[in-house]
Amino acid sequence: MQTFSIAIHGGAGTILKKDLTAELEAAYNRGLEEAITAGYNILEKGGTALAAVTAATVSLENCILFNAGKGSVFTKTGTHEMDAAIMDGRTLDAGAVAGVSAVKNPVELALAIMQKSDHVMLSGNGALQFAKQQGLNIEEEAYFFSQFRYDQWQLVKNENVIALDHNIQTEKPSNAKATEDKKFGTVGAVACDVHGNIAAATSTGGMTNKNFNRIGDTPVIGAGTYANNTTCAISCTGHGELFLRAVAAYDVSCLMEYKGLSLQQAMEAVTLDKLVKINGEGGMIGVDAKGNTSLVFNSDGMYRAMQNSKGEKQIAIYR
Amino acid sequence: MQTFSIAIHGGAGTILKKDLTAELEAAYNRGLEEAITAGYNILEKGGTALAAVTAATVSLENCILFNAGKGSVFTKTGTHEMDAAIMDGRTLDAGAVAGVSAVKNPVELALAIMQKSDHVMLSGNGALQFAKQQGLNIEEEAYFFSQFRYDQWQLVKNENVIALDHNIQTEKPSNAKATEDKKFGTVGAVACDVHGNIAAATSTGGMTNKNFNRIGDTPVIGAGTYANNTTCAISCTGHGELFLRAVAAYDVSCLMEYKGLSLQQAMEAVTLDKLVKINGEGGMIGVDAKGNTSLVFNSDGMYRAMQNSKGEKQIAIYR
Repeated sequence: MQTFSIAIHGGAGTILKKDLTAELEAAYNRGLEEAITAGYNILEKGGTALAAVTAATVSLENCILFNAGKGSVFTKTGTHEMDAAIMDGRTLDAGAVAGVSAVKNPVELALAIMQKSDHVMLSGNGALQFAKQQGLNIEEEAYFFSQFRYDQWQLVKNENVIALDHNIQTEKPSNAKATEDKKFGTVGAVACDVHGNIAAATSTGGMTNKNFNRIGDTPVIGAGTYANNTTCAISCTGHGELFLRAVAAYDVSCLMEYKGLSLQQAMEAVTLDKLVKINGEGGMIGVDAKGNTSLVFNSDGMYRAMQNSKGEKQIAIYR
Repeated sequence: MQTFSIAIHGGAGTILKKDLTAELEAAYNRGLEEAITAGYNILEKGGTALAAVTAATVSLENCILFNAGKGSVFTKTGTHEMDAAIMDGRTLDAGAVAGVSAVKNPVELALAIMQKSDHVMLSGNGALQFAKQQGLNIEEEAYFFSQFRYDQWQLVKNENVIALDHNIQTEKPSNAKATEDKKFGTVGAVACDVHGNIAAATSTGGMTNKNFNRIGDTPVIGAGTYANNTTCAISCTGHGELFLRAVAAYDVSCLMEYKGLSLQQAMEAVTLDKLVKINGEGGMIGVDAKGNTSLVFNSDGMYRAMQNSKGEKQIAIYR
C-alpha cells in the first residue's frame, strides 16, 4: 500500500517563541493548516503530487503572513519581484520564473511555463507577458500592499541595507533592525501521491529592499527546488546565495542516488553539515517516492507542516 | 609538479565540415587560438585559474563568430540579452548574470557580482545598473550588430519560431532554416592553475528570436557552470532547458565526489548517457585539480581547444 504524504514550509530563520504574540502564532498555525489541508485533500482524492504542491503553495501565496505572492516584501524601488519554481519528479519536467511582478500566484506561472512553453525559466516582463497570454490572474499593486511589509521596507531602505529576511515584529519595528531578525521568507511544498509520484514547488518575494534584480535560489532548479522519482522532491528556504553555491536541493538527490543515503540522512548531511560550514542558514523539506517526509533546518525555527496517509500530522514553528 | 591547463569551447551542435567554407573554418580556428592563448599565457606566468578563464572568455566574447558578447544573437524584439556565470573552485564563490544588455563583456560582470556584491545572481536592468556602478565597459547597440546574425533573426522571426542555435551559414541563409542547423551558441572556459586551483566561466547570447526573457543553463550555477577544487570545473554548451533539468555541471561533480568516477568518466556518464536519454544535445569541457582536461560532446561538433603545461595542445571543431 503506497503511503501518500505532503510537507510544506513558510520560511526559516531566527523565529523564537518570545518574538511572536499568541495571536500571531495562532495566525501562522492557521495559515499552515489551510495550506497543508489544501494539498492533502487533493492527494486523498487520488490527485497528483504536482496538483497537491501547486494547491498548497497557492494557499501560502494567498496568505499575507508569508513572503510570497500576496505577502511579498518590497524591493528597493518599492515594487514586488517574485520568484517561483516547480518540478515533476515523474518526468523531470520543470518550470521556473524569476523577478516577475503583478502575477497573483507565481507558482501557477511556473507550472504554466513547464506545461505550456518550450522553456524552463522565464524572467521579468517577459514572464509577465507569458502569464497574461496564459490567462493567469494578474493583480494591481494594491493587492500586494501590507502595512507591516511597508514599514519593514522603510526601516531598511533608509539604512541602505538589504534585508535577507522578513521581519514580522509589528509591535516594535523601529527597535528591531530587519537585518537582525533573520527570517528567510519563502514558501514551498513537496508531495508524494498514491501512485508514488513526487513533486516540489517553491515561491518567494525575495529579500526586502533587494536591488539589481537579484535572483535567489528559489527559481533555480537544483538549488532551491528539485524533484526526481528515483530519489526525492526538495523545497528549500534560507540564505539564497549560499543555497545557490551549494546546489543544495540536487545535492540531497545525489547523496541518495550515488551514496545510498536515506532521505533523512541526505537532508541532514546538506542542511546540518555542508550548509552550516558555509554559514548557509535555513532549512528544507523533502519527500521520497515511498511517502517518507523530512523537515530539516539549521536555524532557530521553520514554519512547517506535514501530513500523510498513515494518519501522521504535524504543524510546528519552533525548534 | 603541478600540471596547469586550460580548455575552452565556442558552442556545440550540428557542426559539419561540409557546412563550413575553408575561410570560415580558418576564422574559427583563429578565434579559438586567440582565446586559448589569452588564458594559457596567464597560467604560464603563475596567474590564477579565475583570471585565466575570465581572459579566455573575454576573448571569445570579443570575437564576432561566437554567440556571446559582441556576436550575440538577436532576441524576438531585436535586442541582445546575454547570460554569463563564473565560479571559483577554491572558495566556491560564484557570480552570474541573466538577461543583461549593453555590457561588452558579461563574464566580467559575473566576476564583479561575485567579488563586489552580496549576491550570486543579478538580472536584467538591475544587472546593467550594477555594471555601470562598477565601471564596466558599456557598448551601444551598434557594437552588437552583425549582418549574419541579423539575417538569421529575420529568417526565423517571420516564421515565429525560436532558434535553439546559431546558424552561421552565410552563403545560403534563405535555404537553411536556422532551426535545422542546431548549433548551440555559448562560449566557456575551465582552467587549473599552478597552485592546483580550478575555475569555470560560461557566456552566451542565448537563442535567436528568444522571447519572454528566457533564461537558459549558462548563468545557472550547477547547470551550465560549476567549479569545486575537490572535484572539477565544468562549462556546458547545449540545449539549455535539458541541461537545466539535468543539473548537468553539478552532476559531474557529484559523480566524482560520491561515486569516485574520474573527470572523464563522470563527464561521459552525463554527456553521453544521461543527457542523450533526455535528448539533451550538446557538450561540456572540464578540468580537475590535477590539471586533467576533458572535452566531451554528443553532437556532431564542438568548437573547442585545450592546452597544458605538459606541452599538449589541441584546437578542433568536428567529431
